[in-house]
Amino acid sequence: MAVIVQKYGGSSVADPARIASVARRVAESAAGHQVVVVVSAMGRTTDGLVALASEITSTPDPREMDMLLATGEQVTIALLAMALHGLGRRARSFTGPQTGMRTDAAHTRARLTRIDASRVRAALDAGEIAVVAGFQGLSEGDEITTFGRGGSDLTAVALAAALKADVCEIYTDVDGVYTADPNVVPDARKLGRVSYEEMLELASLGAKVLQSRSVEFAKKYGVPVHVRSAFKSDPGTLVTREEQAMEEMVVTGVTHDRNQAKISILRVPDRPGIAGQVFGAIAERNIVVDMIVQNISRDGYTDMSFTVPRGDHARAVAALEDVARKVGAQGVSHDERVAKVSIVGVGMRSHSGVAGRMFGALAKEGINIQMISTSEIAISCVIEDKYAELAVRALHDVFEVGKGAPS
Amino acid sequence: MAVIVQKYGGSSVADPARIASVARRVAESAAGHQVVVVVSAMGRTTDGLVALASEITSTPDPREMDMLLATGEQVTIALLAMALHGLGRRARSFTGPQTGMRTDAAHTRARLTRIDASRVRAALDAGEIAVVAGFQGLSEGDEITTFGRGGSDLTAVALAAALKADVCEIYTDVDGVYTADPNVVPDARKLGRVSYEEMLELASLGAKVLQSRSVEFAKKYGVPVHVRSAFKSDPGTLVTREEQAMEEMVVTGVTHDRNQAKISILRVPDRPGIAGQVFGAIAERNIVVDMIVQNISRDGYTDMSFTVPRGDHARAVAALEDVARKVGAQGVSHDERVAKVSIVGVGMRSHSGVAGRMFGALAKEGINIQMISTSEIAISCVIEDKYAELAVRALHDVFEVGKGAPS
Repeated sequence: MAVIVQKYGGSSVADPARIASVARRVAESAAGHQVVVVVSAMGRTTDGLVALASEITSTPDPREMDMLLATGEQVTIALLAMALHGLGRRARSFTGPQTGMRTDAAHTRARLTRIDASRVRAALDAGEIAVVAGFQGLSEGDEITTFGRGGSDLTAVALAAALKADVCEIYTDVDGVYTADPNVVPDARKLGRVSYEEMLELASLGAKVLQSRSVEFAKKYGVPVHVRSAFKSDPGTLVTREEQAMEEMVVTGVTHDRNQAKISILRVPDRPGIAGQVFGAIAERNIVVDMIVQNISRDGYTDMSFTVPRGDHARAVAALEDVARKVGAQGVSHDERVAKVSIVGVGMRSHSGVAGRMFGALAKEGINIQMISTSEIAISCVIEDKYAELAVRALHDVFEVGKGAPS
Repeated sequence: MAVIVQKYGGSSVADPARIASVARRVAESAAGHQVVVVVSAMGRTTDGLVALASEITSTPDPREMDMLLATGEQVTIALLAMALHGLGRRARSFTGPQTGMRTDAAHTRARLTRIDASRVRAALDAGEIAVVAGFQGLSEGDEITTFGRGGSDLTAVALAAALKADVCEIYTDVDGVYTADPNVVPDARKLGRVSYEEMLELASLGAKVLQSRSVEFAKKYGVPVHVRSAFKSDPGTLVTREEQAMEEMVVTGVTHDRNQAKISILRVPDRPGIAGQVFGAIAERNIVVDMIVQNISRDGYTDMSFTVPRGDHARAVAALEDVARKVGAQGVSHDERVAKVSIVGVGMRSHSGVAGRMFGALAKEGINIQMISTSEIAISCVIEDKYAELAVRALHDVFEVGKGAPS
């Protein structure tokens, strides 16, 4: 008997009719298996709760915010358990605290510390379907905590690890991980398998299917994650350990991220401690920096460039202008009309010339490269925003990503 | 420093503006005192959750119903704590389980077994206002339970007992306990004090201010309960131990209950066990029987009459017709158009002739009495529904209830 953990997001359980439909799907899976279902809050419930809090105060206490938000998933688990009962299945719901998800005390962005899955295990052993509230846990001080964005995926993957589940199925509104955004590249292909490492690059590079945090957890504990459609029964994409077959493709996927703005601080004195001051000022404002590039210095001065989410751009520039004066830099330049395109693939490790082919393909389309950054299995270029889709199509084409590897 | 427990019902916290107004009121009370605030779900939230469940199934599992309903108060406590923070007060919210309200496992109608108020006590000692979710607790099996109707009052009174609070204030949309319904009797008077015993009779006889369960608990532990308006600052009615001064009035209040239907089972063989069969059949259907009257038997047969809530009337008659056949009774008669009027007062213990004056007053108005039932401090009559208001006015007048006792 396999142990299967399934996770359904907010849009899959947005109303009673969809909850009933999820219940039917779960009931089918439960034939002959032990099933845990992790669910999010219904549809836009969380947004509604946040709006309620904002009517009360503009600076809600994080502990009380967690108290408030945790109700969202609790409603879903009760309704889904009732729906399973209606189908003649035995089922029992569990809040995050009841599931034994123990966390640190960092409210609204808690980190998992350990899992005591004994209650869930007992339910499974008693022949019940366990219906678990995602996104939430209990601190060592017995306070209700939440995990922040992507928290339900994390609940599912972590519970799968704790239960040594055979698979963790993430049901979503797309039917898997594609070689590129199918809206941009018509011949983008659904990947049958992808390695944890590739998925991490794909997740952090703008593919919105799975949050990096969950992928890191899955990688650490070797949990096979199956990303698939909540509305179709076709298999999706299996995220798993790297295998030989995967390496036959050089590039597994091409991603792009248009939520980028580029900021440069010009002619910075090249002294130790300057980078700390620059990025310290940004971090203080809770702005997440993505790509950072610093070139070699000339005459004791250097230029430093980085990208931030477009919405944080103005605040970042304001912070930087202050720092630029203090450290004696020439000034700050910025550009909101940029995008990042990336190629990802474990095959890059064993193939040379990949970067050259990428740059050549972009040049052939007349696209100028503004910044370059590389990791072991990914190469990213910042280009002018209007060329983003053209660049993705060109790269998808030149690396023959749509054709697929022999499998 | 006094310990004060306050309870605000659903209509007092129906939206963010009202929650802000409750927060201001709580903040005022908290000057120099230790305050615990117990709240219900916002406005019609509980009805909304019940409606959601009914879209899923017509027979929701009670455990899952509790899981669902408990979210209602959890939303209110988080928002109220935020509102108190906004006023510069330290406050901390507690779910029923966190409050240490331990119950039996009877979901949707759990009974309190014990209270471990240590977390609430610690918050008070740390100078925080404790904001507690009413209506809910935790079973010994660590399941979320709810208390059923009037459950938030019970939370407040029980917590006041556990904390040895100086007073438990119940804020409601009426400003106290009246000698009669002011909509029926224009010169009805707000009572300054009323004994637990009288309040019990008043509560169970149809005055909807406080549930009997909470009054019984307050009586058992000697908790002074102050029923007062959530919208005005005037003192309300103090429910407390019987005192000498109270006895100077014969009748403290006149109540009526129109949610009544009368059912009689006619010419029942007068044998042991018959009553058990009759009321067993009613109880099986979860119908609550109010008044029961059985007269002496003639020729080995007797008539048995009782009242039930009007909405349960048809189901009760159906159940009874079955029983009537089995036990060899002549048949079942019923009447939906009845009401119960009652006079209540601890003074009845020491005054004679009270019943006679009551029956005389009704007769003078041409009102026929269909059933009579008495307790130590109350007399109730079932009469034709259309005379209910006339009867209340006549009794309020003849016992001079509106004039008040010297105090």
